[in-house]
Amino acid sequence: MIKVSVMYPSGAGATFDMAYYLGTHMPLVKRLAGSALRGQAVEQGLSGAEPGSPATYVAMGHLLFDSVSALEEVLAAHGPAIMADVPNYTNTQPVLQVSEVKL
Amino acid sequence: MIKVSVMYPSGAGATFDMAYYLGTHMPLVKRLAGSALRGQAVEQGLSGAEPGSPATYVAMGHLLFDSVSALEEVLAAHGPAIMADVPNYTNTQPVLQVSEVKL
Repeated sequence: MIKVSVMYPSGAGATFDMAYYLGTHMPLVKRLAGSALRGQAVEQGLSGAEPGSPATYVAMGHLLFDSVSALEEVLAAHGPAIMADVPNYTNTQPVLQVSEVKL
Repeated sequence: MIKVSVMYPSGAGATFDMAYYLGTHMPLVKRLAGSALRGQAVEQGLSGAEPGSPATYVAMGHLLFDSVSALEEVLAAHGPAIMADVPNYTNTQPVLQVSEVKL
């Protein structure tokens, strides 16, 4: 199993519309990715290591796929449509990482 | 539910012993945190957005707790023991974030 983590950096001027992300963007991804998508998760940053310190990421979204090739098929078919929706909920440049799920 | 994400930056000279992390460190955290710990997850970085590009984080570990206060109780009691084990598997300075699970 692989996980795509999309991490939205916090910082001065960073905007992120969590209601849109949960209500529109993630359902769009789910609809476009279809059965290749094995799971979704979303988190909203609360703090860094110290209570009250800023979180590095204002939000993170995670998508599970069976393999890198399954992900690449979805991105080839629907990547542009997914990316085109990003400015509708954030002005940040997300950090994207593909990882292998170990536990 | 809250998620503590511990993200280990990649880069020149970065080391990370995934076998130790999975076999010793995460079980240590589980034993010390006890029933307050609601879940664990571990990922190993494969790539960034482009296939073959470096992952931002060589590894990520995630811990679930019912609340920030439940996390803080565990850290107050066992944070030093957990932190003392970190140099046994990595030479990196992890980025830690506390997030609210939204989905």
